[in-house]
Amino acid sequence: MGYGIIARMGTIIAVDIGGTHLRAAAYESDNLQPIQHQRVKTNANQAGVYERLIEVIEAVWPKDGIVDAIGAASPGPLDPHTGYILGTPNIQEWQNFPLAPKLLDYFKTPVFLDNDANLAGLGEWKFGAGKGHHDVLYLTVSTGIGGGVIIEDRLLQGTHGLAAELGHVIIDPNGPMCSCGFNGHLEAFSSGPAIVRYALGELESGARSSLKHDVNLTARQVAEAAMQGDALAISAYQRAGEYLGIGVASFLHTFDPSIVIFGGGVSRVGPLLFDSFHTSLRKHVFHPRYLEGLKIEMAALGDDAGLLGALALAQVKLQSLKKESV
Amino acid sequence: MGYGIIARMGTIIAVDIGGTHLRAAAYESDNLQPIQHQRVKTNANQAGVYERLIEVIEAVWPKDGIVDAIGAASPGPLDPHTGYILGTPNIQEWQNFPLAPKLLDYFKTPVFLDNDANLAGLGEWKFGAGKGHHDVLYLTVSTGIGGGVIIEDRLLQGTHGLAAELGHVIIDPNGPMCSCGFNGHLEAFSSGPAIVRYALGELESGARSSLKHDVNLTARQVAEAAMQGDALAISAYQRAGEYLGIGVASFLHTFDPSIVIFGGGVSRVGPLLFDSFHTSLRKHVFHPRYLEGLKIEMAALGDDAGLLGALALAQVKLQSLKKESV
Repeated sequence: MGYGIIARMGTIIAVDIGGTHLRAAAYESDNLQPIQHQRVKTNANQAGVYERLIEVIEAVWPKDGIVDAIGAASPGPLDPHTGYILGTPNIQEWQNFPLAPKLLDYFKTPVFLDNDANLAGLGEWKFGAGKGHHDVLYLTVSTGIGGGVIIEDRLLQGTHGLAAELGHVIIDPNGPMCSCGFNGHLEAFSSGPAIVRYALGELESGARSSLKHDVNLTARQVAEAAMQGDALAISAYQRAGEYLGIGVASFLHTFDPSIVIFGGGVSRVGPLLFDSFHTSLRKHVFHPRYLEGLKIEMAALGDDAGLLGALALAQVKLQSLKKESV
Repeated sequence: MGYGIIARMGTIIAVDIGGTHLRAAAYESDNLQPIQHQRVKTNANQAGVYERLIEVIEAVWPKDGIVDAIGAASPGPLDPHTGYILGTPNIQEWQNFPLAPKLLDYFKTPVFLDNDANLAGLGEWKFGAGKGHHDVLYLTVSTGIGGGVIIEDRLLQGTHGLAAELGHVIIDPNGPMCSCGFNGHLEAFSSGPAIVRYALGELESGARSSLKHDVNLTARQVAEAAMQGDALAISAYQRAGEYLGIGVASFLHTFDPSIVIFGGGVSRVGPLLFDSFHTSLRKHVFHPRYLEGLKIEMAALGDDAGLLGALALAQVKLQSLKKESV
């Protein structure tokens, strides 16, 4: 391949494949305001997700037709090395689905794919809260817990592209069951559904609370009850924060980052989760040096994390191809 | 600095600072047989460890005087970026000790330092069981448990140089106390002393065994009793293997390596530890793809792991300086 064209840095198209929306945006050089942006409903349970994705990409394709690369963020598990989606919980028709090869074939443009948590971490490192840091630990705490890890300015991907699945690290082998079917993962203690499940369990055991036992109870409702002073709701978040502190302590011992960045809806509740998190983290870090200069911050990119992470991926992969070709 | 001299690849001196011996060896280019090798007793509790180290290095210094670098493996915690030993359990006089700066000043030669587990991992990757792999997880299971992690052919060091402290990852927050004073670390379940402590606890609870309750009981004695069919001794190793499987499952989810390499005395007992380890690992890995093609092997470098790891460190650091200077 000739990479002379990269020198002038053409357009990069970033794609964010979400459970609710498919989004595409066209970026020029280092401008984080896209020159085009489009989104459509994913309708994940209806056929034709791939065709809708093609349409949304075509809608942002630049007039001059020159696109250096497509970067894409998708829920995993997926293989960033081959560009295959192994299977996503939402999009049923994508089982062992060659997404990147199909897009490459259709658009005749290099395609780089990784999972949404990895790319949100990469985006925060390149454009957001982690800018200027070389070793970044990003955690999204939401319906699930996902990790994105940057080590010496490089995204941790792993042999099969399945590294940094930090929501599925075992925190207590006798702990509750995770959404994945295994026991005691961080996600089973500190995700939104884990907070709800704990609250429901306590209600069943007769705990007094303003919350009603309702299978449709949400983490947001538990947070609202906590804000009103409900003791059970408060303890549900405190417990999630405590376990999150245990998990992050182990991640410091593992990666020794200079910044920990939290994204995802559950992390936006503030002190309700983070007071107990900080206490627990300090209690469980086994050497004070890990905390020297350590920043703990909220994600800065908001809803655009997926798109900007996909943009960052395309940029760093093009750069490393360029380096290899000199 | 001018790195023209590196092109001819002069001598590298590797140093291994052990609790029992201080060793130094001089290597030429890619020859793993040292041209000189020397060792002296560390006598860690007697003054003058640093002076003995200088002597053992001088004893292997080449006649032509041309040394490109000194690589050194030491017990941690230490800071590989500054070359300071923060404090080692054995060598009392080395508290916040500027080992690399002092050696640089004395020998006027670049000095690269890292901890023994990281360097054993690096040595196995470059010269041993991990040769040809890009993503390596090395674990030494001995008096303690240490980790060394290679990601895309680079040693994981961390912001403070304290990454890959995998023996101090929390496996069960309610678990037994670790040598570091914190609860539930992998080392508190699966190291030699953890195996002994479990056996002693069971004896105290009245378990029948050929083992006698003796504070000087060793992991080796427990292994010997297990080989003779002692049920308690067998279960002590089985339990250590089970928790080791839990820990390694989490490390696969974290790093997704292509090979796991075990070093250290406890890992040499074979099936006594590894039968339950393999069962536990398969039970706790949350996606079968992590195990596809995964190698699990014993360390190949034996007693020379520290020296060869220090040699590997000096080589890779010199190479990366060379790359930066072009």
